Amino acid sequence: MSKFLNKKYLTLEAYTPGEQPKDMQYVKLNTNESPYPPSDNVLNAVNRDSVAKLNLYPDPECKELKQAMADLYGVYTKNVFLSNGSDDILNFFFMAFCDGEEHPVIYPNISYGFYSVYSKLHGADAREIPLCEDFSINIEDYCKNDANVVIANPNAPTGLALTLAQIKRILISNPDRLVLIDEAYVDFGAESAVSLISEYDNLLVVGTFSKSRSMAGARLGFAFANENIIADLEKIKYSTNPYNINRLTLIAGKAAIEDNDYYMDNCKKIQDTRNYTIAKLRELGFDVTDSKANFIFAKSDAISGEALYRELKKRGILVRYFSNSLICEYNRITVGNDEQMKKFIRETANILERKIEL
Amino acid sequence: MSKFLNKKYLTLEAYTPGEQPKDMQYVKLNTNESPYPPSDNVLNAVNRDSVAKLNLYPDPECKELKQAMADLYGVYTKNVFLSNGSDDILNFFFMAFCDGEEHPVIYPNISYGFYSVYSKLHGADAREIPLCEDFSINIEDYCKNDANVVIANPNAPTGLALTLAQIKRILISNPDRLVLIDEAYVDFGAESAVSLISEYDNLLVVGTFSKSRSMAGARLGFAFANENIIADLEKIKYSTNPYNINRLTLIAGKAAIEDNDYYMDNCKKIQDTRNYTIAKLRELGFDVTDSKANFIFAKSDAISGEALYRELKKRGILVRYFSNSLICEYNRITVGNDEQMKKFIRETANILERKIEL
Repeated sequence: MSKFLNKKYLTLEAYTPGEQPKDMQYVKLNTNESPYPPSDNVLNAVNRDSVAKLNLYPDPECKELKQAMADLYGVYTKNVFLSNGSDDILNFFFMAFCDGEEHPVIYPNISYGFYSVYSKLHGADAREIPLCEDFSINIEDYCKNDANVVIANPNAPTGLALTLAQIKRILISNPDRLVLIDEAYVDFGAESAVSLISEYDNLLVVGTFSKSRSMAGARLGFAFANENIIADLEKIKYSTNPYNINRLTLIAGKAAIEDNDYYMDNCKKIQDTRNYTIAKLRELGFDVTDSKANFIFAKSDAISGEALYRELKKRGILVRYFSNSLICEYNRITVGNDEQMKKFIRETANILERKIEL
Repeated sequence: MSKFLNKKYLTLEAYTPGEQPKDMQYVKLNTNESPYPPSDNVLNAVNRDSVAKLNLYPDPECKELKQAMADLYGVYTKNVFLSNGSDDILNFFFMAFCDGEEHPVIYPNISYGFYSVYSKLHGADAREIPLCEDFSINIEDYCKNDANVVIANPNAPTGLALTLAQIKRILISNPDRLVLIDEAYVDFGAESAVSLISEYDNLLVVGTFSKSRSMAGARLGFAFANENIIADLEKIKYSTNPYNINRLTLIAGKAAIEDNDYYMDNCKKIQDTRNYTIAKLRELGFDVTDSKANFIFAKSDAISGEALYRELKKRGILVRYFSNSLICEYNRITVGNDEQMKKFIRETANILERKIEL
């Protein structure tokens, strides 16, 4: 830390991304990436000609990609916001709408760890609402509060999803507060709330190309909302970094949207692999939540989350464990392809000294 | 604007990027891009194989590119910060170091327009210091202030540069305040202050791949400073958007650094073209500053900045004019290639009904 840093950031603790060790080739089941590459359409679109034009700025308005997104999701371009990954949009949300006591914000006590970092960064009056014992969200907890609401649906790292009816209930009960639904994992089995934005002017739906669209490396996030909310987000973007999406990502994003079936087929494959893996983990005695995401949230009475993480890492497999005491027994395991998950199950069985048929 | 936006942003006015009209093919001399494409090394490095790995997150630590930058600039990796364009870094600077009355900031009243947007966005106590009548910076104005200092060197849109001795004078006089030197245009003829970071712990040098390295479309900015300042910037980055540089940009950046001679040769070409164009504009009766950047700052008694902009646009050439009354007589003209600048001079002569030999 330098002597120049603003004092309000002295106690700020930054987010810790999943580890990316380079000492060996790991099976990476720790950052919820897709095991499948981008589609051929993307591979063809990001070509030598597009790289040769990198001397020119990207379109800050992202017009072509916005139109493609609007067409696919059945909204107007004025309802679409694009930015450098969905983290970028979450940051803008806390910055624009959640600063200070006037704009408090609530979210589950077990959810994406970045929400509390953003709260602290922007000085938001944040309150964490405990999940139920089964890790489900008690909707009524979010209806009695005069506060902005942030909910990941499905939630991370539990994988549990809300229904659209439940989300509507929250929206109706908070007409003067914003409700952000973080749909990073929605394509793996939950219901998207995008269709509700025309009806509710207090809804902001955030999504990403990082998971279901195999573009974590390209950094592309999006949001849908009432045009006034989108205008606010654009104002923040144009006051921080107007060209925040690079040319190649704009091209890749549009090519991916044109190839939507490929990605939705991959999502089905990932759901099948997830359900197979969950069944095998249950055979091995794990408690596993009913995940609607591309990850599995599981614990075993026979081994702690940290111990399983360490043993798997020795065997070339990376998963995530948690220091938070509420979930320290659990691991979060990204759903890879069938081969990767069979290796994961096989090694887990070995660690537990159990036999299993694959 | 929505009813949810924090009141402190009600009067915020966002930055306006240079126009990018699509109604015809323009000679774009309005956003200070390089007329030359990225080098072959970049075109080869960003290939189908690298696009096929976009399903994986980029390295948030940017280790390989940091090492390449450190080697080229003769510093340690702990002295290097990388982010999504230099605007991103400027934003972090105002956020981390210039918030409120405790951390006032000063910069020239004629400079990069984004400084005042960042000041307002982050609630900085900002003061604009008038340039001298010839648009030069009076160094003493920056030595008597107990405030952070931001200076673009060369300055934009004037193109005028400070010497290292002048920058040292500012650094020495403000040991307890940060001095940010924005070197977006330094490679076109000014002296870089990077060599001073080991000597002065209050210096932050910011650079970009957008101008001299033909990568405006890739979004890659960098900064050099004492390791404690870099650690502060990393903290802000990891609290907002840790993966803010995408995989392909990391690859392209490293490939560009390996090909540094190509880019420095382009900078020489651009300087030659600039000097030729300045001479021709003077023949046409323009007042032109002694630009050390890849743009020209010029005015004619025969036509206003806005009128020249409009007439050139009709003829398929985009330049920039200014609504600010202090410089509304001027245009800022990006230095393109020889052919583009001959077209610009020819059309300008036509507009002024003058004859000129090219």
